[in-house]
Amino acid sequence: MTYPLLNRLRVIESSAFIAAPLAGLTLAQFGADVIRVDMIGGGIDYARMPRMPHPAGKGRSLYWTALNKGKRSIAIDLRQAEGREIVQALATAPGPEAGIFLTNVGTPWLAHDVLADRRADVVTCTIQGNGDGSTAVDYTVNCATGYPSITGGGSAQNPVNHVLPAWDIACAYQAAFAVVAAVDRRRRTGEGAQLQLALSDVAFTTLSHLGVLTEAEVLQQERPSLGNHLYGAFGRDFATADGGRVMVAAISAGQWKALVTCCGVSDDIRGIERRLGLDFTDEAQRFEGRDAIARLIEPWFAARTQAAAEAELERHRVCWGRYSSVRELLQNDGRVGADNPVFERMTTPGVGRHLAAGTPIRVAALTREATEPAALLGTHTDEVLHGVLGLDGAAIGRLHDAGIVAGPERDPSVAA
Amino acid sequence: MTYPLLNRLRVIESSAFIAAPLAGLTLAQFGADVIRVDMIGGGIDYARMPRMPHPAGKGRSLYWTALNKGKRSIAIDLRQAEGREIVQALATAPGPEAGIFLTNVGTPWLAHDVLADRRADVVTCTIQGNGDGSTAVDYTVNCATGYPSITGGGSAQNPVNHVLPAWDIACAYQAAFAVVAAVDRRRRTGEGAQLQLALSDVAFTTLSHLGVLTEAEVLQQERPSLGNHLYGAFGRDFATADGGRVMVAAISAGQWKALVTCCGVSDDIRGIERRLGLDFTDEAQRFEGRDAIARLIEPWFAARTQAAAEAELERHRVCWGRYSSVRELLQNDGRVGADNPVFERMTTPGVGRHLAAGTPIRVAALTREATEPAALLGTHTDEVLHGVLGLDGAAIGRLHDAGIVAGPERDPSVAA
Repeated sequence: MTYPLLNRLRVIESSAFIAAPLAGLTLAQFGADVIRVDMIGGGIDYARMPRMPHPAGKGRSLYWTALNKGKRSIAIDLRQAEGREIVQALATAPGPEAGIFLTNVGTPWLAHDVLADRRADVVTCTIQGNGDGSTAVDYTVNCATGYPSITGGGSAQNPVNHVLPAWDIACAYQAAFAVVAAVDRRRRTGEGAQLQLALSDVAFTTLSHLGVLTEAEVLQQERPSLGNHLYGAFGRDFATADGGRVMVAAISAGQWKALVTCCGVSDDIRGIERRLGLDFTDEAQRFEGRDAIARLIEPWFAARTQAAAEAELERHRVCWGRYSSVRELLQNDGRVGADNPVFERMTTPGVGRHLAAGTPIRVAALTREATEPAALLGTHTDEVLHGVLGLDGAAIGRLHDAGIVAGPERDPSVAA
Repeated sequence: MTYPLLNRLRVIESSAFIAAPLAGLTLAQFGADVIRVDMIGGGIDYARMPRMPHPAGKGRSLYWTALNKGKRSIAIDLRQAEGREIVQALATAPGPEAGIFLTNVGTPWLAHDVLADRRADVVTCTIQGNGDGSTAVDYTVNCATGYPSITGGGSAQNPVNHVLPAWDIACAYQAAFAVVAAVDRRRRTGEGAQLQLALSDVAFTTLSHLGVLTEAEVLQQERPSLGNHLYGAFGRDFATADGGRVMVAAISAGQWKALVTCCGVSDDIRGIERRLGLDFTDEAQRFEGRDAIARLIEPWFAARTQAAAEAELERHRVCWGRYSSVRELLQNDGRVGADNPVFERMTTPGVGRHLAAGTPIRVAALTREATEPAALLGTHTDEVLHGVLGLDGAAIGRLHDAGIVAGPERDPSVAA
């Protein structure tokens, strides 16, 4: 679902993979008219796994269709000068809501200066791997952050990569923020902006914002490898009698009290505190005594089914969560489904009917509008050329004939 | 470093932990005047680990000081009606740049409707655990996403929690985006906005945006647990002769060709392709043959020191990254340090001199301004009461005398 919050801001997106497409999606979900420009036949990310099954291997990518919901698609031969000229014209089209360009591709002919020659107040946002323009991806940035040495049972010799592309995600949402801030400023001052955002800068600045860099610099200490314990207070996963697994967190004083009461271990906790000389009302001392605490409450979980444990955790207002697979999440968790207004059901060509998310942001008193599914490549080629650039039917026909633009690709799920 | 991009937008923040403080920091780094309101003596997150050493345990939190750079601090007794009234007045103070309230605390007397009664066009952004207002934290949300079952060597029976609070971070940057979009809209329409953002919605919508939900729903498949392999193409970590470790990624065709050339394995790769009936120019087939590829190139890394391997990877333009601890990152990686303009050095009271990050976003032609370090609690109490609410010295003095507000706390590193 999208909200008409951004007044149909028009963003031209030339992108691949996650960071820029997710930034564009974020803007689209707040009502921007995001036009994604792709090479005829699709760009480098167009067939990325997972893909729909198809006899000739032409199934649509569930990755691409997820990241490009709610956008318009124009397909252009970017190797031809006239194709490039069209993209430049789109990115610098007139109007207070237009003149916004988002990319993580780094094409010289779409550089800020090139576009600013056509429209002085253009707002461009370029996502890079590193700030010097060199290549980096989420995986080659994350390994430098120190996290793989402390994730799970990881160590310097046996690092554990996390699977979530967390830096791409953070980068995307920062980029959407920066674009809106720059457009807001343009409204006030008339000035455009050249925004650049490097994936590695997003990761390393976030390390600083979480205190991790200063801890290493000032205290000369590294975080310990904690398995599934959380850092700085008490929290860990526990197995239930029937093979289930729950995570509990006791960060605040109230959460700690709830956990102790729920598990009926107040007296034992006092015993452990005396034995270890710790005061567990202090979160840092709970962290210090984490192994003893975990051993004490393990039997409580092991003696109960997941359902019974969850009912008691809930009744005592413990902060807890259930481990689930994605299919279990879809089946059993009411937070994921069409009953949650941040989700809707849609039909994507070549994919079928499925659940899809809109913006996670709820805006009271504004009506959510249905999100358009990811378009077949080139679906909006003609309407964009006409509506944005003012080309007439003859001019558009000539571009098609010359192979400079293409209309909608075939839906791979429809028999020829 | 901060940019004067947001025209001194004034944001009142009542917050704890990561999501709302990091959203406020993001706004501050784009030039917003963020005033964090805290209970006299500090809120629930004020002593969160890691902390500076101190004989009486009063060392400042490196977590809190990292997340609250560049903000002003006012200390108020929030249990007293008059204290609450001051916070309400701050959040709804007049002016086109004011009337913005950011929270993840969920206090009823700071609910949107209460504030909108005082200023109809107030913009509020409330970060919650779950959309129904119930509690959830990063750890109890992440366990439901399916990621712990596929991170590292994780499984449903032995899930691996990642350590990075990725959902808090994503939530923070989404919140900053939403606030700026709503303020931009307020400028155009005169209307305020009640924004709500749940941590679990951020996580589950992101799963949808990455195609993970649709994969499970439409294809009825779960991602495999991959150890340190990346999904959908080729990439993994490799050990060097001297105990180092590098991550390589071959997602694009160019990256794959570079890796094969660098490791000198073109002929062997063709042999594996024939044997397995795969075509590694297709990224999905590289993923299918990942184990054979990894075994083939392991010896190349094992035969070289880290320095030698890195030099050759770089020369061949392979997409690679080095595993490092945080201290190694600070010492050896030029991307983290004062030579990178997204970083600066600052002196934080109670902490000392250290490196700190500004916004990762580079805005060409705008001058970065130095970031103020995290203030001692209550440092700006008087100037905020005077500058924002217009109170005179006598009124401010009375509030101090009545214990309703407090001035700067003592710097714990300075002898009494």
